Amino acid sequence: MALKILVIGAAGMIGRKLMERLAQEGRLGETIEAAHCVDIVAPVIAAPFPIVAEACDIAAPYIPPKLIAGLPDVIFLLASIVSGEAEADFEKGYAINLDGTRMIFEAIRREHANSGGAYRPRLVFTSSIAVFGAPFPEAIGDEFFTTPLTSYGTQKAICELLLADYSRRGFFEGVGIRLPTISVRPGLPNKAASGFFSGIIREPLSGREAVLPVAETVRHWHASPRSAVGFLIHAATMDAAQLGARRNLTMPGVAVTVGEQIEALRAAAGEAAVKLIRRERDPVIERIVAGWPTNFDASRARSLGFRSEETFGQIIRAYLEDENVVANP
Amino acid sequence: MALKILVIGAAGMIGRKLMERLAQEGRLGETIEAAHCVDIVAPVIAAPFPIVAEACDIAAPYIPPKLIAGLPDVIFLLASIVSGEAEADFEKGYAINLDGTRMIFEAIRREHANSGGAYRPRLVFTSSIAVFGAPFPEAIGDEFFTTPLTSYGTQKAICELLLADYSRRGFFEGVGIRLPTISVRPGLPNKAASGFFSGIIREPLSGREAVLPVAETVRHWHASPRSAVGFLIHAATMDAAQLGARRNLTMPGVAVTVGEQIEALRAAAGEAAVKLIRRERDPVIERIVAGWPTNFDASRARSLGFRSEETFGQIIRAYLEDENVVANP
Repeated sequence: MALKILVIGAAGMIGRKLMERLAQEGRLGETIEAAHCVDIVAPVIAAPFPIVAEACDIAAPYIPPKLIAGLPDVIFLLASIVSGEAEADFEKGYAINLDGTRMIFEAIRREHANSGGAYRPRLVFTSSIAVFGAPFPEAIGDEFFTTPLTSYGTQKAICELLLADYSRRGFFEGVGIRLPTISVRPGLPNKAASGFFSGIIREPLSGREAVLPVAETVRHWHASPRSAVGFLIHAATMDAAQLGARRNLTMPGVAVTVGEQIEALRAAAGEAAVKLIRRERDPVIERIVAGWPTNFDASRARSLGFRSEETFGQIIRAYLEDENVVANP
Repeated sequence: MALKILVIGAAGMIGRKLMERLAQEGRLGETIEAAHCVDIVAPVIAAPFPIVAEACDIAAPYIPPKLIAGLPDVIFLLASIVSGEAEADFEKGYAINLDGTRMIFEAIRREHANSGGAYRPRLVFTSSIAVFGAPFPEAIGDEFFTTPLTSYGTQKAICELLLADYSRRGFFEGVGIRLPTISVRPGLPNKAASGFFSGIIREPLSGREAVLPVAETVRHWHASPRSAVGFLIHAATMDAAQLGARRNLTMPGVAVTVGEQIEALRAAAGEAAVKLIRRERDPVIERIVAGWPTNFDASRARSLGFRSEETFGQIIRAYLEDENVVANP
């Protein structure tokens, strides 16, 4: 059997890296026959298999049925607007992050019904640790409740519930994965409140200054882009029967303080790199970050075969290798 | 200040008992100025304050804005289709239990915006212990995750998330209460899988036979209709600031086995009543009930002032008093 895959959100950082990896391997369990890659801007992707790349908005009700009409075997649903935007624009956040996802699920349900139950694709959905809200235990376990403190986290938690119900009903085989903060993000600094977690590593590694807006004691939960792609591929190919009814999983990661991140930078690139970090506290960012989870016990995902780095040093090495960066402070 | 109240789902058992109590007391914290009572059939209610009683379907998009247009100060949102029906009719369940509720929330958000933020009603939503799914710990604590095993439970869990987000945003002051199984339900036997929990008490108390379809070791979580009304009134009048961001609460109840229920019946009405219970196992009901939660640690609700019976004997006494039944086997 050859696979048709659909990637929704293919122009984002994770979507691009997923497609690079799939293009390189040519397979996802089975041989890939064709890929349909969409995002709000047309993704630019090359691969040894045919690709249709398109710009579209999943919040427009005519779009989801068109995306599913080709009966893709595996669907990666990565598209969403980010936390800050979903908080600033309540209606847009619900329209894209909730209704867009639900319309994709509904389009699959209809094709499932049209096929007499034969069509039942694998669906991999990227959720977020934003489904959790403070106060937290020392490590958030696999059975901790989801009480998000943002509209974005609420939308992700709702999609997780829908994914579990649609899977239980047999409309598709859903796997929801809650990604850690992805570090080290390549590219230019961005304005996300979490941007500095990557910035304080990426910028000094290339000899540029970076601002650290919080105390070194701030602890956070990280995995590399390479691990994130690994999570997606494992979620697409694993035996989903192992999940039972609990289909949403906190992915493994590395819990480190900013101070520990800086120590890993020192080990990788020396004192000159560390000196490029400029400490400049930002009370707004400090307040946002204070509400974020810092540490997880992701036993269930690990026991199901999901793998991440174990130290922040490994995360830095993955960045240097994958981005062809030579540490050069 | 005099209150305008809106009761959505006023013709159901809990809705009727709530209105009887409010009619009797004439107040809900403040004096009640008027009540608007709706359900899919027109509720029949008498009270010392003016009542508008109407039949309407909250899943029809033109209805929710009309219900909220009168700017009610307190909204009781009790309407939903039951678990069995939501499982049998996927689309109807989502249309009423999810979209109907969401459209009420949205109608409030719009009036909130139209009023420049001044309109911010109290909203009491009845959720369910069906938001939880097996396997369970010995007692389900206040931080246990919601992994429902029915579409009904999924819809309730999603509404809880929306309620928390809309409250956090300041659109309304929401309180979500997860009701135990309500025992002893008055009236005729019904076909709900949980019906026997009430039937094995109610029917023998009136000298009629009742079927017990499960083993006496089955344990379940109960509160009386009187307690349910008490929960609603407390949720409507409590200081909601105490809830913080976690606005959905498992209500207190009594965890007893069927055998313990029968012992309480014996104490209330003697051996002759107990002899009216006919044991006839039903594998379908046994399987459904096996997936239900059996026991909770509802510390948070208790500490916030929610009160239930403490023994099943008290639940039987509440039934005898409130329904004017004389035990007469």
